[in-house]
Amino acid sequence: MTGRGVDRRSFLTGAGGAGIGLGLGALLGETQSAAVSPAAAADQPAIVPFWGPHQAGIATPAQDHLHFAAFDLVTSRRQDLTDLLATWTATAAALSVGDPGGTIDDDLLRPPGDTGEALGAGPAHLTVTFGFGPGLFVSGAADRYGLQGSRPAALADLPAFPGDRLDVARSGGDLAVQVCADDPVVAFHAVHMLARQARGVATLRWSQLGFGRTSSTTSSQETPRNLMGHKDGTNNLHADDVDQLDQHVWVGDEGPTWMRGGSYLVVRRIRMHLEAWDRATLGEQEQTIGRHKSSGAPLGGTEESSPVDLDATDQGGQSLIPARSHIRLAAPSTNSGARLLRRGYSFADGVDALGEQDVGLFFICYQRDPTQQFVPIQQRLAESDALDEYIVHTSSAVFACPPGADAGGTIGAALLSG
Amino acid sequence: MTGRGVDRRSFLTGAGGAGIGLGLGALLGETQSAAVSPAAAADQPAIVPFWGPHQAGIATPAQDHLHFAAFDLVTSRRQDLTDLLATWTATAAALSVGDPGGTIDDDLLRPPGDTGEALGAGPAHLTVTFGFGPGLFVSGAADRYGLQGSRPAALADLPAFPGDRLDVARSGGDLAVQVCADDPVVAFHAVHMLARQARGVATLRWSQLGFGRTSSTTSSQETPRNLMGHKDGTNNLHADDVDQLDQHVWVGDEGPTWMRGGSYLVVRRIRMHLEAWDRATLGEQEQTIGRHKSSGAPLGGTEESSPVDLDATDQGGQSLIPARSHIRLAAPSTNSGARLLRRGYSFADGVDALGEQDVGLFFICYQRDPTQQFVPIQQRLAESDALDEYIVHTSSAVFACPPGADAGGTIGAALLSG
Repeated sequence: MTGRGVDRRSFLTGAGGAGIGLGLGALLGETQSAAVSPAAAADQPAIVPFWGPHQAGIATPAQDHLHFAAFDLVTSRRQDLTDLLATWTATAAALSVGDPGGTIDDDLLRPPGDTGEALGAGPAHLTVTFGFGPGLFVSGAADRYGLQGSRPAALADLPAFPGDRLDVARSGGDLAVQVCADDPVVAFHAVHMLARQARGVATLRWSQLGFGRTSSTTSSQETPRNLMGHKDGTNNLHADDVDQLDQHVWVGDEGPTWMRGGSYLVVRRIRMHLEAWDRATLGEQEQTIGRHKSSGAPLGGTEESSPVDLDATDQGGQSLIPARSHIRLAAPSTNSGARLLRRGYSFADGVDALGEQDVGLFFICYQRDPTQQFVPIQQRLAESDALDEYIVHTSSAVFACPPGADAGGTIGAALLSG
Repeated sequence: MTGRGVDRRSFLTGAGGAGIGLGLGALLGETQSAAVSPAAAADQPAIVPFWGPHQAGIATPAQDHLHFAAFDLVTSRRQDLTDLLATWTATAAALSVGDPGGTIDDDLLRPPGDTGEALGAGPAHLTVTFGFGPGLFVSGAADRYGLQGSRPAALADLPAFPGDRLDVARSGGDLAVQVCADDPVVAFHAVHMLARQARGVATLRWSQLGFGRTSSTTSSQETPRNLMGHKDGTNNLHADDVDQLDQHVWVGDEGPTWMRGGSYLVVRRIRMHLEAWDRATLGEQEQTIGRHKSSGAPLGGTEESSPVDLDATDQGGQSLIPARSHIRLAAPSTNSGARLLRRGYSFADGVDALGEQDVGLFFICYQRDPTQQFVPIQQRLAESDALDEYIVHTSSAVFACPPGADAGGTIGAALLSG
């Protein structure tokens, strides 16, 4: 078998041999551990290993582009779900190394196995991360797949927060697919292929494109700016701090067996009222955030990396970091030490009927238990954050992302075989 | 003055000196012709010259990302329009070399001059291209700016084409701003800054994000694939073929003085019914397009670069390139030699109420006279193209893009001073 390390281009030109289809999981898994030839490494460096103890796309350095998709299950059969996850896992593993999701061969009488738009684009650090929504475990009163007893307590429906203006059609979902890549066409292609494979079993409920990551997820990445022009995520958890991830991100012994090594995902589409923000003075903006705009330093500090000193006061005894500022209310010390691994992206979805841009931040965070992390933090922010004057949450969802799989395995298999 | 060649980052850190604002046109223009120091060239290679005989962004090698915006004028005063174009031109020139669009200084009592999201991102080959819609010349019965007599015959409203399903709210516009860059945050920032500067004079009517260019605009660029998985734009005009551009793209003596060296822009948001396309067999797809999917070769040819032979037949005398195939109907020889300089991008705007992805191609083309080029070609395609089964045009606009300006000038000044 010659498929390993073959990208979409060489596949098509024949260098990788024809006939590669799905079911390559066992083979492709070798790329994570096996030595790669120097030539292959030079040609193909942009691969994030798919197989492993944790799913890719959580502690992976944030790529430049996001395509997030939520699906509703339309089947009543548990086996369909099991089969879909097997197909999706194999496809995600193939795409992650730059292989196509199926053949485009010379069979003129069948639809091409791969949809084709990413041919030649390479793997582009593609990651595909799968999550299970509450609807998988219970839908209304129905336990449609016999999974009700497996629902973790941490996968609770999110409460309604003050100020929420949620679009139901863009919230929730039974299955989540978070696709990140450095090439937006590669990201699009992954969602396209998975949606096509889901026909008859699951339908696309909503999707969201994102550009311009708004968080660093490793200590070596520079802190980016969000569309308000502020550095975002300076004090994010970093994926290279393994102890912190074990403490705050990966589910441990407290969770059901099938979730250990997994993580809970909360997404919130946060629209920004940019026109109002643009009219605020520099002082108002900095007092709202609690950081200087240009440097990103906390008020009272001199550099972005300056520690956030919530006790610092000016000569008149006033707090330098205001009581309602965003960074004070979101700080771990304000929230009993709770922290999140953020992975947000900017979005821009055109113009609304009033001529205002429909833009903002698609907030993504991972954590060990949303009921102890995202929920209490967001409750505090929704009640008091000065930033609430300029933002509104328009969609929301929570998912349980199971651990990774060994090469050739299936993401979520431990739940469905349980 | 130390502003030349200073990027957004060094500006902020003080290396470029504080106090750079607008009105830098005359200075920034030097970057196009003046020698750049080796250090500056190494730091700052990603600059497309803004000033020159033609506007940037037309014959510029296609960048990776698009943010297109259309504005409606809300002022009744011609002077407001003149002033806006001067401000927009100066800002576009500054952003094109990586300067901010205004200061973020320590004046806490005023809004920051630059919105900040692209600080540190560099110029990223940013181009900003301005166009005038028919509404600038006549709006209903009103000649609101005294420009009715200056309207070129080539700036005719596009006719209704068979099959059009146009969303009026996403069509037309008095002013067009086409922003392209290799960094989507840089592209977003330009539209953001221009929209902010337009307050009280023009409002955003609609905007469209695009990713994954679907045309090569120079002979050295590889042909990309659209979301149907086919190579698109193989026989596009190339910006490095000066004679072809003079013949097909740049307005010559036939146009009014203020348009000579300019070009006409037509944009069409073309939605793809991907689910139907994905169910079509490889044979159906290739017969619809007229090219092989994997190689991009015309049917009957062996390579993408093989000439399109519309007369080729199989052994039974049937045309190899079918009568209703897209490339036959769009071919120059089918259209009296008419050609277009295309500059399209893919788009993905979520999921519609039926669960189908709202995705497709944002078609952009430049030409010397739409009434002789885009309109007759599209008339033929709308009537007969086999591809019409899988696509629908959902928005449409036409604009007159005046020529470029000398350093320190204003795009469109010759129209408004005429």
